[in-house]
Amino acid sequence: MLHPVVLSGGSGTRLWPLSRQDRPKQFLALMGEHSLYQETVLRALGIPDVQPPITVCSDAHRFTVGEQLQAIGVGSGGIVLEPVARNTAPAIALAALHAVATDPDAVLLVMPADHLIEDEAAFRAAVEHAVELAEKDWLVAFGITPDYAETGYGYIRRGEPLGDDGFRIERFVEKPGRATAEQYLADGGYSWNSGMFLFSARRYLEELGIHAPAILQAAQEAYAGAGADLDFIRVDAEAFAASPSDSIDYAVLEKTERAAVVPVSCGWSDIGSWSSLWSVAERDEADNRTEGDVIAVDTRGSFVRAAEHRLVATVGVDDLVIIDTPDATLVARKDRVQDVKAVVDRLKADGRTEHLSHRKVHRPWGSYDSIGVGPRFQVKRITVKPGAALSLQKHHKRAEHWIVVSGVAEVTCDDRVFDLHENESTFIPLGSVHRLRNRGTAPVELIEVQSGSYLGEDDIVRLEDVYGRS
Amino acid sequence: MLHPVVLSGGSGTRLWPLSRQDRPKQFLALMGEHSLYQETVLRALGIPDVQPPITVCSDAHRFTVGEQLQAIGVGSGGIVLEPVARNTAPAIALAALHAVATDPDAVLLVMPADHLIEDEAAFRAAVEHAVELAEKDWLVAFGITPDYAETGYGYIRRGEPLGDDGFRIERFVEKPGRATAEQYLADGGYSWNSGMFLFSARRYLEELGIHAPAILQAAQEAYAGAGADLDFIRVDAEAFAASPSDSIDYAVLEKTERAAVVPVSCGWSDIGSWSSLWSVAERDEADNRTEGDVIAVDTRGSFVRAAEHRLVATVGVDDLVIIDTPDATLVARKDRVQDVKAVVDRLKADGRTEHLSHRKVHRPWGSYDSIGVGPRFQVKRITVKPGAALSLQKHHKRAEHWIVVSGVAEVTCDDRVFDLHENESTFIPLGSVHRLRNRGTAPVELIEVQSGSYLGEDDIVRLEDVYGRS
Repeated sequence: MLHPVVLSGGSGTRLWPLSRQDRPKQFLALMGEHSLYQETVLRALGIPDVQPPITVCSDAHRFTVGEQLQAIGVGSGGIVLEPVARNTAPAIALAALHAVATDPDAVLLVMPADHLIEDEAAFRAAVEHAVELAEKDWLVAFGITPDYAETGYGYIRRGEPLGDDGFRIERFVEKPGRATAEQYLADGGYSWNSGMFLFSARRYLEELGIHAPAILQAAQEAYAGAGADLDFIRVDAEAFAASPSDSIDYAVLEKTERAAVVPVSCGWSDIGSWSSLWSVAERDEADNRTEGDVIAVDTRGSFVRAAEHRLVATVGVDDLVIIDTPDATLVARKDRVQDVKAVVDRLKADGRTEHLSHRKVHRPWGSYDSIGVGPRFQVKRITVKPGAALSLQKHHKRAEHWIVVSGVAEVTCDDRVFDLHENESTFIPLGSVHRLRNRGTAPVELIEVQSGSYLGEDDIVRLEDVYGRS
Repeated sequence: MLHPVVLSGGSGTRLWPLSRQDRPKQFLALMGEHSLYQETVLRALGIPDVQPPITVCSDAHRFTVGEQLQAIGVGSGGIVLEPVARNTAPAIALAALHAVATDPDAVLLVMPADHLIEDEAAFRAAVEHAVELAEKDWLVAFGITPDYAETGYGYIRRGEPLGDDGFRIERFVEKPGRATAEQYLADGGYSWNSGMFLFSARRYLEELGIHAPAILQAAQEAYAGAGADLDFIRVDAEAFAASPSDSIDYAVLEKTERAAVVPVSCGWSDIGSWSSLWSVAERDEADNRTEGDVIAVDTRGSFVRAAEHRLVATVGVDDLVIIDTPDATLVARKDRVQDVKAVVDRLKADGRTEHLSHRKVHRPWGSYDSIGVGPRFQVKRITVKPGAALSLQKHHKRAEHWIVVSGVAEVTCDDRVFDLHENESTFIPLGSVHRLRNRGTAPVELIEVQSGSYLGEDDIVRLEDVYGRS
């Protein structure tokens, strides 16, 4: 059986300020209605007779993954939580162990969650070829046929043909210089290393045991200690942390005798930067990609994105990337967007938060957006999903006013439980034990005005939580 | 007696998005603590034996002018409201009529409100020379000694010397081309036309009567029909509207035999665009001017301004102007900032409001800022100044929740009048007659949550208003 494995552990700092640690690029709808993660899942489910997808992600993104699967009506084959990031070899090992636990003959189709593929039919045909090779015990890498001399990817040099389906891998090569990349392109025997793979789970684990036994051992111990937490597979953190950190390429594929490549030309892009997103996006006659409320005067070759309720106007500029969000705006030269990382590094060094989360923060129960702050007060717009509830909680340093602007909220405040309807308000005194719940079928939208001497998110005592966060 | 006349009628569209119709550039603190208008007033008051300043401004800015004078502790010599804009000749005529009403020998020092002068001592010395010429019945223009070949200003060609104090004006010349400007600079006999003038009020009115009698007549009729409205001089609108629209240069100075120029070198700038503001501002070692929360990576020669509570990050850009405000951000090439006007024209054509007012709107009683909007609700942060009161009002289509976060508000709601303290809230039902007042000595800060089917500013019935707006 074919099991898609979606690797969703990336942090996507090069797409800051849209991509942030608590909602990195794979979970953003960058190119239409669905996030890159959802697109990846839907693409995999387009393959005949495929099993529900196994997702490997970090603990911090577990609710996002669950929600995004639910939003596209897809049942999960398991959401495996990486306690710490240890690169792809250990992550795939966990997925392989999870797959063989129910299907000893599982074949894994491993896909990073943040890639774009335009020609899905070509991709499915390549998967079919790869499956045939996997049945002959090959570990297959998908190699993208280059259409220009890219210097930002690693390459795979093909060796002898393996029937009609692919080639033995002669060697992996690192990101080349310009001249070498041109030579690879002219040669025709090189593919881009896409980071997508297909192989028998058992075969992968065997090869891992031969070439990287410490990784296999750590993954086995971590998975053996796994517990189920809601829909999540929570492996033993200490055991997993003991694993060496290595990529599948280095740990296994460069060492095994059974590495194969299936070349494919499927309109693939890794959306690795704002310029690569610009290059694959639809653009207007001035070669601009604009999103949101933008007035572009004499502007060319640029990517301009305005945040909701905000206008971005440009005058006489070329080849810029302008990404506007509620709390931060980036203006970068399009050929310098790799250095967006320098901004994120600076934010980290300064102990700031704009790389960690957006002003609007997603929670398993909905979201909150800090729309106004001043001395001793803060205003939040809060949305509670149908059927959802915030934790039963109290604060030591702030009181809260709640005004319902849409829906019906069930409010617990110390001993009282009551409904708060549209256009009604209530007051939660400092120290009161309280909870907000939405028993209805429509979202509850409310405005919270906090007042107090300290208004940080860490002034919260969770007494009970349906999401296991207390 | 010397009466400063500050012309504050400009709209300052080229400094959008910071400068907007209801708070144009002369009222903004662009270069420090005080607004350009306040700087202009304080500069004038640095002249010995000077009278309180007469301000000519549009009706829409009357409260701003009053507040800004009060903020610097300056008594007003009169705030003359232009019912419509008719350029400088009629505006100065109103000021002259106002001055001679109490001081028949008034000498006027006319200054646009939006200029910057770095060397005030040099300016005062020039005023002294001009006063001596005005006493000999000359109408004096201040001519700025050019330090480069500017093509954006008009020039004044000096004629024969008038003692040590100045020169007869040979002629005014329009904005020259590059080559002509170079020639003017080399010649040494040309000054920039600063728009600042000094003359006897009576003499100006006489010359106006000779060269532009229709303007004089309109101004006289308008001023004769003036009424006092609070501290403001509100002239007859219909009479003033009948005046031809013309500048003092065209209407009088180019025609009279008694036009003189006093050259001065005083670090003058008209702050006519973002690039001119950049050029006079203090800059860092990379030639950048940054204001607010800015992270500039490999950025040169740029003006970057972040709005409060927002971060602007730049990567690898040169010679840009980036002006960020709560509802709109401009990104322009520094040598293309004249075309910011094209954005404003587009906003006008589209019936938008981002050129009219900021998200935070100033009112005589304080300010409001629309910090959040959604379907059927809006959240405003409202500040009421000590001693101030909103109008007694009601709304047909919205109810309001008020939560006081600082100070003590006196609330009128139908028949009830009560105090609302910090951290208390109240509800104003749809249709209720209500008022908010601050009887205290500290500002009242409150959060208003509006709910209803229509939330526009025009759903207001003012029943009583201390500012004469009902």
